[in-house]
Amino acid sequence: MFKSAASVERLSNRLARLPGIGRKSAARLAFHILKLSKEEAFELADTIREVKEKVGFCSICFNISESDPCQICTDSNRQHQTICVVEETPDAAALDKAEGFNALFHILGGRLSPLDGIGPDDLRIKELLHRINGDVTEIVIATNPNVEGEATAIYLSKLIRPLGIKVTRIARGLPVGSDLEFADSATLSRALEGRQEF
Amino acid sequence: MFKSAASVERLSNRLARLPGIGRKSAARLAFHILKLSKEEAFELADTIREVKEKVGFCSICFNISESDPCQICTDSNRQHQTICVVEETPDAAALDKAEGFNALFHILGGRLSPLDGIGPDDLRIKELLHRINGDVTEIVIATNPNVEGEATAIYLSKLIRPLGIKVTRIARGLPVGSDLEFADSATLSRALEGRQEF
Repeated sequence: MFKSAASVERLSNRLARLPGIGRKSAARLAFHILKLSKEEAFELADTIREVKEKVGFCSICFNISESDPCQICTDSNRQHQTICVVEETPDAAALDKAEGFNALFHILGGRLSPLDGIGPDDLRIKELLHRINGDVTEIVIATNPNVEGEATAIYLSKLIRPLGIKVTRIARGLPVGSDLEFADSATLSRALEGRQEF
Repeated sequence: MFKSAASVERLSNRLARLPGIGRKSAARLAFHILKLSKEEAFELADTIREVKEKVGFCSICFNISESDPCQICTDSNRQHQTICVVEETPDAAALDKAEGFNALFHILGGRLSPLDGIGPDDLRIKELLHRINGDVTEIVIATNPNVEGEATAIYLSKLIRPLGIKVTRIARGLPVGSDLEFADSATLSRALEGRQEF
C-alpha cells in the first residue's frame, strides 16, 4: 500500500496479523504510528518488548503475572477458600472487576472442545484438583455460557463434587440493562429456571 | 484490567490510544501480543521503531518515503506531466492502486477548513505551484468528495487554471458494485451531472 516506504508497508502487514485488525485498519494504524512523536512510538515499541520480557505465568493459578506466585494468589485479603475457574486470563480480569467478589482464580487455558481436539489433558484440570485441599470450600465454575463452556463446567462438576466440595456455576440470565423483548429464548429459559425468591 | 501484570496493563493503555481501538480491543490485543512468540512480538516492536527511524518525507511531493526524492518522483516510467493532488499520504497510496493511473502525486497535508483554522498557508500549496513548470500539462485534484475537500478543490482550480494548465477533478458518482436504490441523493445528482456518452 505504501510503496514509497517499505518499512511502513512492513509495519502495516505486521499489524494486519493481529486479531480484529483488517488490511485497511492496519494501514491506518501504521500511518498513525508514523505521525506519532518519536518518543510516543518508541514507548509503544518498548511496552511490547517489556510485556514479552517480564510477563510469565503464575505456577499456582496460571494467570499472567510478573511475579510467581502472582499478586492474586499471595493476596491475604482474598478469600482463599473459594476458587473461581475460568477459561482464559481476560475472563479472570473481567470477573475481578465485579464488585463483592474476592476469590482466587484458576485459569484452565481453554475449554473442552472435542471438534478441535482439545480434551481434559490439554487443560489445567490436574493442577486444579491439586489445589483442592482442606482449606478450599467452594469451586465457582465461570467458563463461558456456550456449548463448550457448559460441557467443560459439567465435566468439572462431576470430577470435583465427589471430593465433597461445593461446586457452583455462575448464573445465566438476562444481562443487566437489557430488554426482555429482545432476549433470545435460551437466555429467557435460563432466567426463568434460575429465578430466586425476593 | 490485568492487575496481576502491570506491563500488560501499560501496553493495553498504550494501545487504547491508537485510533479506532477501544479499551476492550486494546486489552484483547495486549493479551494476543502476550501469547505471541518472543520473536514475533519483538518483530512487531522493531518494525514500529524502524518506521520512526527510517521514514521521512519526500521534499518534492511530500509523500512518506525512506529516500529523498521518493521512489515515485524518481520513477522514469511514470507520467511526469500529470500531478495528482491529494490531502494525505493514504489517499495517494489508495489511488496508486487504481489500474491505468500512473501520475506523480502531491500531498497537501490536509484540506482547507476555516472552522479548524486551516487556511491555504497551512497546506503545501506554494510547493505545488512551485512544481508547475513547462513539463506539467495536467493537475488532477483528488481531494475527498466532502465539503472541505470540494472547497479545497475549487480553491486550487481557481489558483492553477490562470497558469494555462488543465485542471481536472476526479469523478463523483455511484461506487462500482453499489445499489442505485440505496445511494444518497447528492451522489445520484453527481452521477447524473457527470453522465457520459456511450
